[in-house]
Amino acid sequence: MCEQALRGFDLDRLRRYPDPVFAELRGALAALAGVEPERIFVGNGSDEILSLLARAFVEDDESIGSLDPSYSLYQTLAAIRNVKWRGYPTVAAKSGAALAKRIHPSTSLFIWTNPNAPTGEFAEPDEIAAFAKAFRGVTVVDEAYADFARGNCMALAASRRNRSIVVMRTFSKSYSLAGMRVGWCVGPRDLIEALYKVKDSYNVDAVAQAVALAAIRDQAWMRSNVRRIVATRNRFTAALKARGWDVLPSESNFVFARPPKTQRAAKLFAALKAKNIFVRYFKGSKTGDRLRITIGTDAQMKKLTKAIDELNLR
Amino acid sequence: MCEQALRGFDLDRLRRYPDPVFAELRGALAALAGVEPERIFVGNGSDEILSLLARAFVEDDESIGSLDPSYSLYQTLAAIRNVKWRGYPTVAAKSGAALAKRIHPSTSLFIWTNPNAPTGEFAEPDEIAAFAKAFRGVTVVDEAYADFARGNCMALAASRRNRSIVVMRTFSKSYSLAGMRVGWCVGPRDLIEALYKVKDSYNVDAVAQAVALAAIRDQAWMRSNVRRIVATRNRFTAALKARGWDVLPSESNFVFARPPKTQRAAKLFAALKAKNIFVRYFKGSKTGDRLRITIGTDAQMKKLTKAIDELNLR
Repeated sequence: MCEQALRGFDLDRLRRYPDPVFAELRGALAALAGVEPERIFVGNGSDEILSLLARAFVEDDESIGSLDPSYSLYQTLAAIRNVKWRGYPTVAAKSGAALAKRIHPSTSLFIWTNPNAPTGEFAEPDEIAAFAKAFRGVTVVDEAYADFARGNCMALAASRRNRSIVVMRTFSKSYSLAGMRVGWCVGPRDLIEALYKVKDSYNVDAVAQAVALAAIRDQAWMRSNVRRIVATRNRFTAALKARGWDVLPSESNFVFARPPKTQRAAKLFAALKAKNIFVRYFKGSKTGDRLRITIGTDAQMKKLTKAIDELNLR
Repeated sequence: MCEQALRGFDLDRLRRYPDPVFAELRGALAALAGVEPERIFVGNGSDEILSLLARAFVEDDESIGSLDPSYSLYQTLAAIRNVKWRGYPTVAAKSGAALAKRIHPSTSLFIWTNPNAPTGEFAEPDEIAAFAKAFRGVTVVDEAYADFARGNCMALAASRRNRSIVVMRTFSKSYSLAGMRVGWCVGPRDLIEALYKVKDSYNVDAVAQAVALAAIRDQAWMRSNVRRIVATRNRFTAALKARGWDVLPSESNFVFARPPKTQRAAKLFAALKAKNIFVRYFKGSKTGDRLRITIGTDAQMKKLTKAIDELNLR
């Protein structure tokens, strides 16, 4: 479907400016989410949506909160916006109501990544609902990995009673379109309108709109892509556990895993890199004993397991 | 060239994130501009570059200046950035040094559109250089239409002595790629670095990078595209003048023209729209007596001339 959208793209459309409000794509996303099109926003990747959220909903004397560890981007975002960032341990997120009580009074935007990265942990939508109810600001649920998880907050965001929850999705993970840069979100009408007011006129190009539309219309392809990745993830998790690794239960397209004592995460990261195998390593007390490994094809994961075995021999 | 870049795009590249610093495209643009790649920035359309400039070089108590009339976007940009915008009559731009003296002391960013829109007027690079020398802030020369003009400020921006001039270009006009959203700029290293610091990680998608690279490598196509548009513009200008219109000398891909007294611009705009012919009309004392007409194909311009003749009969 995506291939056809790209190969068959009418070149005359490149001469003209793209639809500034991506009506066709927005309509398809609205139907998927079960909301009016006015409650959908599309960005040049989720990154752009996050940047617009930080500009629309955070004043100079306010702050941005998120889980910790989570995406390092949120801290960068706060730095660019010139406001404070505050992190809250993921264990605190077991109870949404309790977490809300801990949030600093200056925080006007809280980004809850679910499933979280790099941990892969999943929080129950009920806990996020309880958090949002008690939190005075805007709750953004970054659901980049939701298609790999057992649940999500889309129904919460789509509800007519929702006043403060924005759920973000991306085409970069479950649709395997990271090169294309399309993210979208669902929220209450007034919050979504605020994003349209601060965005650039033509923020999503015509080709990206066409490819994303084809992708969203082909839910079967996405589902089978997710099934393949989850199956590989489960096989890879078993392979790591058989080798003495501790693997956090993952509801995403990666695992966050601690090697046995014979292999230190930092050293293993460097050794794999020397073999042109790229995994992620985040130093620090909360993350430094683990590797974040994105699930690729079965062949890629076998190559990685083999490399791990070889490095173990030293 | 662009067609091949799109049709032949390797779909596997869509799975991966695009190059965040667009190295290959940046290299080609650097070679074209005659500067080091570090002095080139690429944005999701010139719109994104303007938005980043406003965030990087304008403090809360500073302001943005531009010619007036010019793009209305600059005023919108200032409103979103929550700072004051100030306009300066285009006639004041005849002398860059004199214009610099008039600029409000709070102004830290001045956007000089050259050729200007909607007027199509061209300012001599020497005047812009004199302005930048006397102006304390960053001078942005928005050269969206420069490929249609008799000169440009690229050599000024590329000079090693340049400390404050950023020249912006776009693929939307002379390369006819408005649907693709790629703009770029050249400036002193420290100013360009500041843009990289505030941009989103992956602001230009992989397909846009590939298509823009193919376009920039095919200067012959762009030149012939420009020649065709200029020839049509000259024929269309003559046709309007023969009908008693006043047409400002244009160095762009549009004309800014005043109909004779028998036809008022506002009424003509509405009547053409009713015929599904779209031109631009900007009400107000400085622009309200003219239409801005973008040059299309010869066939489109003949259709427009015919429509004008028919409306004249009433």
